[in-house]
Amino acid sequence: MTETLTGDARTQALAPLLAAGWALAEGWDAIEKTYEFRNFIEAFGFMARVALWAEKLDHHPEWRNVYCRVEVVLTTHDAGGLSARDVELARRMDALAATP
Amino acid sequence: MTETLTGDARTQALAPLLAAGWALAEGWDAIEKTYEFRNFIEAFGFMARVALWAEKLDHHPEWRNVYCRVEVVLTTHDAGGLSARDVELARRMDALAATP
Repeated sequence: MTETLTGDARTQALAPLLAAGWALAEGWDAIEKTYEFRNFIEAFGFMARVALWAEKLDHHPEWRNVYCRVEVVLTTHDAGGLSARDVELARRMDALAATP
Repeated sequence: MTETLTGDARTQALAPLLAAGWALAEGWDAIEKTYEFRNFIEAFGFMARVALWAEKLDHHPEWRNVYCRVEVVLTTHDAGGLSARDVELARRMDALAATP
């Protein structure tokens, strides 16, 4: 069972993500971000690389793709909220998006 | 400019899709379907194959993935509704989903 992030650990983990364009979702304990790419090839190329990491980390995003746009929501269902696994995947996604 | 499907051509094109689990979307002229796979690898494997076809056909789905589930909406934006291109992509998606 993964534990949710709380207190100072949560604040410190989320601060750089919030500064990098992630936002707290409304209605549940999750973070969300929309990535925009130049075209579908870049958008889906990003998704393919994230998918491999997600499977490797055994932690998967909820995401929606419309052409060059990828909307992502991260939360940890078995923890009932945000955990360190979401922070790890969010950082990884930002790193992958930065090198298309 | 792609033309929307109308009249008998529309009825005949949509009938087999509606019988195969596609439904007309509410609020706009689009069709939607939810695919369920056994796991993320199969779900994203399906998406990867669809993505290659979508790029080849130059017609892209709006889709959302949560683990083993892929929710798809098809419409033709530059036509303002359903066109033969949606029917073609829907058939292709069903064929790909049938051979994971």
